[in-house]
Amino acid sequence: MADATRERIKEYAREIGYIYNRRAASLRTSRSGIVGVVVHDIMNPFFAEILRSIESELDRSRQTFLLSNHYDQLEKQRTFIDTLLQLGADGVIMSPAIGTPAQDIRLIEDNGLPVVLIARSVEGAKVPVFRGDDAYGTSLSTNHLISLGHTRIAMVGGTDQTSTGRDRYQGYVNAMEKAGLEIRPHWRFPGPRTKQAGFEVAGAFLALQDKPTAAVCWNDLVAIGLMNGIARAGLVPGVDISVTGYDDLEEAAIATPALTTVWNGQREVGRRAARVLLDRLNGAEVNRSQQLIKPELHVRQSTGKPKER
Amino acid sequence: MADATRERIKEYAREIGYIYNRRAASLRTSRSGIVGVVVHDIMNPFFAEILRSIESELDRSRQTFLLSNHYDQLEKQRTFIDTLLQLGADGVIMSPAIGTPAQDIRLIEDNGLPVVLIARSVEGAKVPVFRGDDAYGTSLSTNHLISLGHTRIAMVGGTDQTSTGRDRYQGYVNAMEKAGLEIRPHWRFPGPRTKQAGFEVAGAFLALQDKPTAAVCWNDLVAIGLMNGIARAGLVPGVDISVTGYDDLEEAAIATPALTTVWNGQREVGRRAARVLLDRLNGAEVNRSQQLIKPELHVRQSTGKPKER
Repeated sequence: MADATRERIKEYAREIGYIYNRRAASLRTSRSGIVGVVVHDIMNPFFAEILRSIESELDRSRQTFLLSNHYDQLEKQRTFIDTLLQLGADGVIMSPAIGTPAQDIRLIEDNGLPVVLIARSVEGAKVPVFRGDDAYGTSLSTNHLISLGHTRIAMVGGTDQTSTGRDRYQGYVNAMEKAGLEIRPHWRFPGPRTKQAGFEVAGAFLALQDKPTAAVCWNDLVAIGLMNGIARAGLVPGVDISVTGYDDLEEAAIATPALTTVWNGQREVGRRAARVLLDRLNGAEVNRSQQLIKPELHVRQSTGKPKER
Repeated sequence: MADATRERIKEYAREIGYIYNRRAASLRTSRSGIVGVVVHDIMNPFFAEILRSIESELDRSRQTFLLSNHYDQLEKQRTFIDTLLQLGADGVIMSPAIGTPAQDIRLIEDNGLPVVLIARSVEGAKVPVFRGDDAYGTSLSTNHLISLGHTRIAMVGGTDQTSTGRDRYQGYVNAMEKAGLEIRPHWRFPGPRTKQAGFEVAGAFLALQDKPTAAVCWNDLVAIGLMNGIARAGLVPGVDISVTGYDDLEEAAIATPALTTVWNGQREVGRRAARVLLDRLNGAEVNRSQQLIKPELHVRQSTGKPKER
């Protein structure tokens, strides 16, 4: 076809509502340069730290990074995925919303959008997953409290609706049972995942008749909120009540008292998820199984020997 | 033109790399449904609260919300804007990167992408701006400390490179001068904007010979970090040293001690910015000037009478 004809067609195509599309045009040479990331809540510092490392990895490959929250609503997650598909995005990294069926992941991949999961897995989905070994993590913090002499240990926060929630609770249960300690149902405070919620649970926690001397918290936010609530009640966290967190956020080390917590490898999760997605985009075969990052216990001032009251 | 011809052209257009574009096709009927939001750092809770209210406003109009950080790098900001233009986005809400020239804002608008600014203004840009009245805000916290009897008051954090930074410092200076109090250059600790940085400045702050008895902090993060640093040094924030924050983040009320701070109208800024952008998309004429949200002082336990040392 003559160049003049080609140009005339291009011009007409523009007029009737077609624009040049980076991806379609670049199928033979390169990519659209857009990667989507969707998580429960970008503003949660746990995701923030994962996202920072995803971003720095993608930056180096000059990929643009579009973010969205799904707030655990499948509908919002699907809308964002639809947008990515229409934009011709190259791939998506997601922490799947509660209740995401494997079918959803399969559909995204069938539409040509490679998926990598972070933080949570989806039963039956055949895509790479990067997350911390949550059961191992809470067993570390629970065992630490047991070794200090605690026998009445509560678990504060989290939900059974996610793989993370189930695994963290299981790690606590495993450690308690292995040590022959009793697990009382009302020592579990399910739900809290934020500072505010941790703060609000302090009243009920301190009012228990068979007072626990320590709390294994779902994450650092809940732990810091609970410590603030304990301090507000006139007690000293780390002395009167031992508290452990999970994630080792930047602020764990500067909290009052400095928080004993489980480092959860956020940066490692983000870095590896981004690397594997880039590898997939470059046509490499990747390991499509779940890869668990091994957590570590960071002992600080919020845990000590139990104080008899 | 015959339908058959039109179809043949469409097909050819697709083959050579043109795809149907929602926006171009929908100019006569509707919009692409995509709004971009770019800020310094999404993970900063100050922006998080603005973003939540933008998001809930856009959700109601079924707009999809794409986020990006510019980390005060003009290059990153421009790349995101280019992506939005190529995607056919409807508009953009931005907290402009330090040094954004009015020319950049004009170019975005000339390309058909309406702009609304939040948190920071750009000298010479003719677009709606929503931000708090920062000078008034720090004069509130400084006057509160003066009324408690403090005369040696430091200012911790912030930068002169943004309109916000200049205004907050000016509010502190105005209040000090009006009360006839001395402003010593080394009582200003420019820079810190995070908890970690506030925590790290505590050492230098407490080592001053002519010790200030109070600190007006750039934001709540710096104030909470500074309080943690003061507590780590064995002093009691709110008793030995009074501290004020700025923003009234959710966690200000649950901090130890509860933080006296300036409510900055984040939710109001986000809600109004989103409303005005939607109005513009609907073709309404809007006010293109800067609109200042009036801040309020929220007094809690981190401020008290000065303790002579």
